[in-house]
Amino acid sequence: MKVFGDMQSGNCYKVKLLLSFLKIEHSWQHIDVLNAETKTPEFLKMNPNGKIPVVVLDDARVLTESNAILGYFAENTPFIPTDRYAKAKMYEWMFFEQYSHEPCIAVARFINKYLGLPEDRLVEYQRLQPKGHQILAIMEQALHQRDYLLGDSLTLADISLYAYTHVADEGGFDLSLYPHIVAWCARVQQQPNYIAMNAS
Amino acid sequence: MKVFGDMQSGNCYKVKLLLSFLKIEHSWQHIDVLNAETKTPEFLKMNPNGKIPVVVLDDARVLTESNAILGYFAENTPFIPTDRYAKAKMYEWMFFEQYSHEPCIAVARFINKYLGLPEDRLVEYQRLQPKGHQILAIMEQALHQRDYLLGDSLTLADISLYAYTHVADEGGFDLSLYPHIVAWCARVQQQPNYIAMNAS
Repeated sequence: MKVFGDMQSGNCYKVKLLLSFLKIEHSWQHIDVLNAETKTPEFLKMNPNGKIPVVVLDDARVLTESNAILGYFAENTPFIPTDRYAKAKMYEWMFFEQYSHEPCIAVARFINKYLGLPEDRLVEYQRLQPKGHQILAIMEQALHQRDYLLGDSLTLADISLYAYTHVADEGGFDLSLYPHIVAWCARVQQQPNYIAMNAS
Repeated sequence: MKVFGDMQSGNCYKVKLLLSFLKIEHSWQHIDVLNAETKTPEFLKMNPNGKIPVVVLDDARVLTESNAILGYFAENTPFIPTDRYAKAKMYEWMFFEQYSHEPCIAVARFINKYLGLPEDRLVEYQRLQPKGHQILAIMEQALHQRDYLLGDSLTLADISLYAYTHVADEGGFDLSLYPHIVAWCARVQQQPNYIAMNAS
């Protein structure tokens, strides 16, 4: 099995993190987004949407969309609750992650860390700051009285949201304002087989 | 059970459509987004993210995020495949919908239909046009050799993507360029208990 991705991308890292938690063997092919490696004809044949991560299973079948990939590998593991409502709440957090969190926290980080905060993205970057703090405040509130987003144990909701949240400071968001998020990040980092984003 | 939403919003309409397919009784409370009804203290208590749709179950438990709501109600129905890979592909389309399709097709429609294409959103609107056509081309390619996004039968992937796709012309996208999408829309409309977006 082969994963195409960039470990500095939260969307890719979350897949790496789950595969590490589950001890699933795989090879990792680094893809350079800034060098347009997601837009080559070969890559677009795998994923017409031109995004990473992409997983190619041993039988050559392809999976894209980071959170859908998490769902595939976590099937029948404790990372997905069996209770119908709890499972829906898990997906609620994961859609929140892709629809609200990522377009804000990850994009601010991309503008700052990858592009070096260029003049022509400054207005956009500044506009993302208050939005990002609203998003982080929602997580802080949820983690106020529980250890993980759904309750007592870690699920895909945590893996998905941890990826970009724990490096939100790289997008200009001061995480020390959110003590419950900081404590939750430490809890994720203490899981068996945890792997850091800057590991290669 | 009560659903808070706006039938002109694709994210809300997709929930209405599934509930109609499944003949699940519910009351519908109209929420006026332009009148900031998603930002009142009462609403934010239900959904701190200030977005519709919101479902309040009979036991007062709350669900948000349209595609997570679809997953909750379709549990153990033919709208979710049982095969692990097929289910992952279904969620792949649903994350594609929220991450790539909605921020493009739905936002262009919002700027044009709801806001009346104001001068200060014109650049954004025009920037969304080529992106939207890329997104629609991906769907057209997928529907080229199958009746529904996953194969022979309708799943949540179709319900999710149908919502904003069938009104993409309201965002300036000429659907006649995509004959397989047009045929797929007609197939969705022929389902038993189909309900139109402009029904109230």
